Amino acid sequence: MSKKCVVLLSGGLDSSTCLAVAKDHGYDCYTLSIDYGQRHVAELEASKTIAKNITPNPHKVVQINLDAIGGSALTDDDIDVPDYGDSNDAIPVTYVPARNTIFLSTALAYAEVVGANAIFIGVTAVDYSGYPDCRAEYIQAFETMANLATKAGVEGQKLSIITPLIDLDKSQIIQLGHHLGFDYGLTVSCYSANRKGEACGVCDSCHYRRKGFEAAGLKDPTRYAS
Amino acid sequence: MSKKCVVLLSGGLDSSTCLAVAKDHGYDCYTLSIDYGQRHVAELEASKTIAKNITPNPHKVVQINLDAIGGSALTDDDIDVPDYGDSNDAIPVTYVPARNTIFLSTALAYAEVVGANAIFIGVTAVDYSGYPDCRAEYIQAFETMANLATKAGVEGQKLSIITPLIDLDKSQIIQLGHHLGFDYGLTVSCYSANRKGEACGVCDSCHYRRKGFEAAGLKDPTRYAS
Repeated sequence: MSKKCVVLLSGGLDSSTCLAVAKDHGYDCYTLSIDYGQRHVAELEASKTIAKNITPNPHKVVQINLDAIGGSALTDDDIDVPDYGDSNDAIPVTYVPARNTIFLSTALAYAEVVGANAIFIGVTAVDYSGYPDCRAEYIQAFETMANLATKAGVEGQKLSIITPLIDLDKSQIIQLGHHLGFDYGLTVSCYSANRKGEACGVCDSCHYRRKGFEAAGLKDPTRYAS
Repeated sequence: MSKKCVVLLSGGLDSSTCLAVAKDHGYDCYTLSIDYGQRHVAELEASKTIAKNITPNPHKVVQINLDAIGGSALTDDDIDVPDYGDSNDAIPVTYVPARNTIFLSTALAYAEVVGANAIFIGVTAVDYSGYPDCRAEYIQAFETMANLATKAGVEGQKLSIITPLIDLDKSQIIQLGHHLGFDYGLTVSCYSANRKGEACGVCDSCHYRRKGFEAAGLKDPTRYAS
């Protein structure tokens, strides 16, 4: 019997590498994107293409209008996305309230529908130390909760939340994906990417991506708008 | 300083009673409905009216198209909603995968945005013993996870998940709301209610509501279509 997993796929570098790892581990992968009213729609387009390249299962998109409740520069038009270096806050304004909890909860629902016993999520505690929901103790608590939440869990089918990137920095993630033959030209990281998927080059996310490719000693296939 | 809470409000009997309890406990209430592609749209209309009667804060609705991933009679058009007594399964087909987890996660995001330190949810372990995500141990695990998930939690502001109805049966819930002066004529419970909010009278939910009013010795204000 093949192992099934749900992979949360944003179309960015981390989640795409996570999908490549899940596939490499022999999982039958069901990809899921959450469209939560974020500004980087280009990522969602990228995720469809990436999913198609890796798995025959249909890519699913669940829309959640988190902009209805606001609270983040990524979903709230009244808060500007800062350029790299503009903010010294421990937790950045690009933090989306409870984002990974909402993502994992939706993945949990999908895992139950397809009968998957694992959810892959590409969180990393290294580059995103300001995000509470990227830490191992949070992931562990979610897994405990998830196994009490569902029909499958109650019937004894253990579900695992797998975070293959949690101890890796950006350059190590890129090296891992490169080793697995993944084409990073398909991914979009930029918080303000345009509809053609071209990156702004100045936001936090662009900064970390560029530094990651430099540190990995690999060519950056990102297309920049300027 | 006033206590703030988020109340998950479906427009049904349980969640409405829960809101009345939160208000009675002195909370400044922020109501949230999740529109997850369920068939009973009438409940969402009811929730707006109920919220307006109880709190001056704007009622929020977050849309989540769970029908994109399927798996329940409440969101999947390929699965029929059974009449009462049609099914003997331990977990009914009206169970929505990971529903309360998705609801609580969204409420967690909203709690963080408004600075609330409590979330009220009207789950009851008595009438819904078949739903794993209505049990106290599940709620406790969610609370533990939630306090590791958010900026507020990390900064030491404890969030509580409050379930005032968890040990009450339907008649006790109705007696509680009646005691608090709540008007159940505003609520809609039916899984197949029409757009005017009239109930079918034959589904599981209608059955339990009718029995609840009978056992409570109170007049049932439900409007039936037939």
